[in-house]
Amino acid sequence: MRIATVTTPSDSATCAAIEIDGRWHALPAADLSELLASGAEPAPGPELPDARPVLPLPRPGKVICCGLNYGDHIAETGRETPAYPTLFAKYADTLLAPGADIVLPALDDLELDWEAELAVVVGAELRRATRAQAEDAIAGYTIANDISVRAWQRRTLQWFQGKAWDATTPLGPVVVTPDEIDPTAGVEVICRVNGVERQRGNTKTLVFDSAALLAYISTFTVLRPGDVVLTGTPGGVGMGMEPPTYLRDGDVVETEIPGIGLLVNTVRIA
Amino acid sequence: MRIATVTTPSDSATCAAIEIDGRWHALPAADLSELLASGAEPAPGPELPDARPVLPLPRPGKVICCGLNYGDHIAETGRETPAYPTLFAKYADTLLAPGADIVLPALDDLELDWEAELAVVVGAELRRATRAQAEDAIAGYTIANDISVRAWQRRTLQWFQGKAWDATTPLGPVVVTPDEIDPTAGVEVICRVNGVERQRGNTKTLVFDSAALLAYISTFTVLRPGDVVLTGTPGGVGMGMEPPTYLRDGDVVETEIPGIGLLVNTVRIA
Repeated sequence: MRIATVTTPSDSATCAAIEIDGRWHALPAADLSELLASGAEPAPGPELPDARPVLPLPRPGKVICCGLNYGDHIAETGRETPAYPTLFAKYADTLLAPGADIVLPALDDLELDWEAELAVVVGAELRRATRAQAEDAIAGYTIANDISVRAWQRRTLQWFQGKAWDATTPLGPVVVTPDEIDPTAGVEVICRVNGVERQRGNTKTLVFDSAALLAYISTFTVLRPGDVVLTGTPGGVGMGMEPPTYLRDGDVVETEIPGIGLLVNTVRIA
Repeated sequence: MRIATVTTPSDSATCAAIEIDGRWHALPAADLSELLASGAEPAPGPELPDARPVLPLPRPGKVICCGLNYGDHIAETGRETPAYPTLFAKYADTLLAPGADIVLPALDDLELDWEAELAVVVGAELRRATRAQAEDAIAGYTIANDISVRAWQRRTLQWFQGKAWDATTPLGPVVVTPDEIDPTAGVEVICRVNGVERQRGNTKTLVFDSAALLAYISTFTVLRPGDVVLTGTPGGVGMGMEPPTYLRDGDVVETEIPGIGLLVNTVRIA
């Protein structure tokens, strides 16, 4: 299944929806957060003509990110393969809708960088879950770009202040359920900037796959339906280039996972 | 003013309350989060006999912590005075009520440590605030203990997984408004374990005071009424002792700020 939160030209409110034969059909919830929290089987309603996916999960309680999870990205940062996942937290305010501009203030030191990522959406409550329980609790997969303000990320030992700028993490456009896609077997994660490919990794090379991350996190904090876990970014980020290359006003960031879709977001330094 | 979220023996629901002459009087909200979000002036209602403070803010959208903010604690970790605040995030699930047990599973490697802290409660929305705006937006101050699972904190570069264990950060018991207390001028922050004083710092030695932290954070993410910022811990944590000394099952942690009150929580390794 491909599910999303959509709007239509005739209705300003959002609606959860399922794609059937290329068309969006209404589901009985205002968005995917509400749908997943309800635990209801998605029974398709009427078609929603001209529906357009928006931010799939408007207010996840948790958005937990894993850093240093692809072998090649670990190598470009000069580190060794980790025994434990490197985790940090974001808040829902960080999320940004598909197609929306990535707006940042014109500060001297931003060093705005891209990080294409596979995102896992939690579908059931998890506490100290086994790997099998975690796997069963995966509602689906979507795309994220963990746009990072490197100058702030580097200010201190903790990355949070470079990772939690409001409305800078594009997420979406749709959530694809595990029966249609298997990131542990491998999907490609691609980032293009102004049409030039900068990242292409495969999730089969993840040190910690989605189920491993969910089980690990659930050891110390509960995960609930609609929570999101970002699985890390492959090699090819701007700070790893020679010389380091960062995003500028007007740059178009495309984040793609074949089988899920494409996020297109433009940088605006306001 | 001293305000709190309380329960009474006659009512299982919580209620916001204000202390007048040592007695709790009802305020028109279910808890302090609701009271602060409403922006209403707290007009005291009837007395609530035998009221008992519980978790003052049950579900803050953000609980942002500053590390390495006291000169003496910075020295015991072997670091230099920072140019920028070291920030990391928690979720509301991490919070624990006054008097409640700090329960952790019996894992081999916990190294459970104490960190007494002054916590600032946000009273108004802040976006890219000046210091003066941030100061005006402080609803009040309370007490926290950022109980840390050092073995997990040290597993990776990011502290989150050692800091975000569910129900391990005692908060409360009351919120004291800025007209009654001035942490920038200085209040003492004290931690005792089984009656032995382990930490005693003064907030006048903070590198970044409450208003500075709120203004800085609001540069990159909005703060809303009821959000909480932990200002860091003074010297004297268990990992700084010779030899390092950690909390064990049955240990009683007292966290005190004279002028606010006392948190008493017992460690239970289950």
